[in-house]
Amino acid sequence: MDIAPLAVALGDPAGIGPEIVAKAWDARLQHDLAPFFAVGDQRSIEAVWSGPIRLISSPDEAMGCFSSALPLIQIHDTADIVPGQPDLAGARCALDSLELAAGLARSPIVGGLVTAPVAKSQLYAIGFTHPGQTEFVAERCGVSAANTVMLLAGPTLRAVPITTHVPLREVVNLVTVDLIVAKARATERGLIRNFGIERPRLAIAGFNPHAGESGSIGREEIELILPAIEILRAEGIDVTGPLAADTMFHARARAEYDCALCLYHDQALIPLKTLHFDEGVNMTLGLPIVRTAPDHGTAFGIAGTNQAHPGAMIAALKLAAEAARNRLLHA
Amino acid sequence: MDIAPLAVALGDPAGIGPEIVAKAWDARLQHDLAPFFAVGDQRSIEAVWSGPIRLISSPDEAMGCFSSALPLIQIHDTADIVPGQPDLAGARCALDSLELAAGLARSPIVGGLVTAPVAKSQLYAIGFTHPGQTEFVAERCGVSAANTVMLLAGPTLRAVPITTHVPLREVVNLVTVDLIVAKARATERGLIRNFGIERPRLAIAGFNPHAGESGSIGREEIELILPAIEILRAEGIDVTGPLAADTMFHARARAEYDCALCLYHDQALIPLKTLHFDEGVNMTLGLPIVRTAPDHGTAFGIAGTNQAHPGAMIAALKLAAEAARNRLLHA
Repeated sequence: MDIAPLAVALGDPAGIGPEIVAKAWDARLQHDLAPFFAVGDQRSIEAVWSGPIRLISSPDEAMGCFSSALPLIQIHDTADIVPGQPDLAGARCALDSLELAAGLARSPIVGGLVTAPVAKSQLYAIGFTHPGQTEFVAERCGVSAANTVMLLAGPTLRAVPITTHVPLREVVNLVTVDLIVAKARATERGLIRNFGIERPRLAIAGFNPHAGESGSIGREEIELILPAIEILRAEGIDVTGPLAADTMFHARARAEYDCALCLYHDQALIPLKTLHFDEGVNMTLGLPIVRTAPDHGTAFGIAGTNQAHPGAMIAALKLAAEAARNRLLHA
Repeated sequence: MDIAPLAVALGDPAGIGPEIVAKAWDARLQHDLAPFFAVGDQRSIEAVWSGPIRLISSPDEAMGCFSSALPLIQIHDTADIVPGQPDLAGARCALDSLELAAGLARSPIVGGLVTAPVAKSQLYAIGFTHPGQTEFVAERCGVSAANTVMLLAGPTLRAVPITTHVPLREVVNLVTVDLIVAKARATERGLIRNFGIERPRLAIAGFNPHAGESGSIGREEIELILPAIEILRAEGIDVTGPLAADTMFHARARAEYDCALCLYHDQALIPLKTLHFDEGVNMTLGLPIVRTAPDHGTAFGIAGTNQAHPGAMIAALKLAAEAARNRLLHA
């Protein structure tokens, strides 16, 4: 089924975003990538890549030229682009690119949004008040960020961290029965809608070593996780747990569920990046649009040296296309 | 270099210990295993395995018969052994086996101690007051358990959890600069002594997401980990960190250090068991003797059904032999 082209925000022009988007275009046939177009500054790509770029003014032009050139909607900015050297003008360029790409993605002539990495500290310095791109996109979609879910996806593992970028000592006070239930519900809906899984199997990780050993090593499993599981099961959601976190991520264990629900950032991200460091995708569930991103940062240290690995960007493009197709099929 | 035979405590007679020890003996040629002998009840092996057993009364007899039969020192107990059905008599058998094997391992006619899994709840019910086998062995060696280090080893990763079987919410109060320094020192000594690594490279994980992002997501990195690293470096120990925990366990990252120091159980055990579920070995550093164990439990659910995978027991035997050799070489 043909989907509309994907919009790709290039992220910080001094980061590796432009390079990995261009390299993904180079690999479009090898990976059978659906058409996409970049949104950002043409010069940020030209600084690191010598392939053909086609300037377009509307997403639908991307379909016709994608096979022969990387389509790009130019952002008018004043950044002096030097790969590896971020500055405030570059942050403004990144924000403008994101804003335009997210806006376009809300229209039916765009299949979904893929975002390259930005430098948060630079964005904060120009007055950006959202914690990250996800929250910004959610707001532009009219959705509370609290109702979105961050799902990490690799070839053999999907994982959702129920809490994200908060100090670990605070996690224990943030996790509630309600939060677990809400995130599990949103995850189930997201798996059905974006992945076409009819009846997703969720597995919830324990919080303590060995999932608490029946209360002898901590009581969060008994007081929070089991009551949440009871509520979810009563709603007909297929959920198991709490599973000992250390024994739920090896190959045989992963085969038993479609998505792991984890209580804190590293519980989800350690197994995901240990297994799939170069292919991890961050997908936002709970939005009216499809949104994915490669699960890595700007990597300023290697920007401009042609060392950036496009694997995660390619995976993000593939997953966005898959989700867009599933949404068409089940709309 | 020839080492003395290894003593293998069979663990709970109703668990998979007897089966995996017997299967390891079956695989002795394939894995070039150094001679070992079992300590436990002959009937627990006969219930699950039909190979040859040779009763011995002293460890030195193991060398002569290991090639043709599994040498065993019989424990006199009253257990009615039914695989998969643990009871208190079996727990007494497991404890007697451990006690004898640990005692023998303190003499130079034994190369080291390998322990099969026990059922802690059963042991507690017969009055066992140590948290686990490690603490019991430490006491018998005249070492405070607080001065030992639990090291998990797989083919491509070694990891030490600085805190172990405690609720996660308490970890933040247990980790101190002194504790990190003491565990890092003991880990360095253990890597030199048991693995023959001349100058071990240690990597310390951050506690918070992204290792705290310079204090914006938690301050344990600044207040605990960096001061500990400063002390350790002043002593000439090669240590890096705090590293973001989610990006330090993929293949390229693991190549940069010899051992990861983690702040809590799952931070070490998730990557270890995700990567090496069937081959994980638990080694106790800081003891006068070599001690290893397969990093899994009694698996009562599959005991007696011939499904137990001996991979981790074989890895524990190999690692014990390697450590014994390194200790002889560097004595």
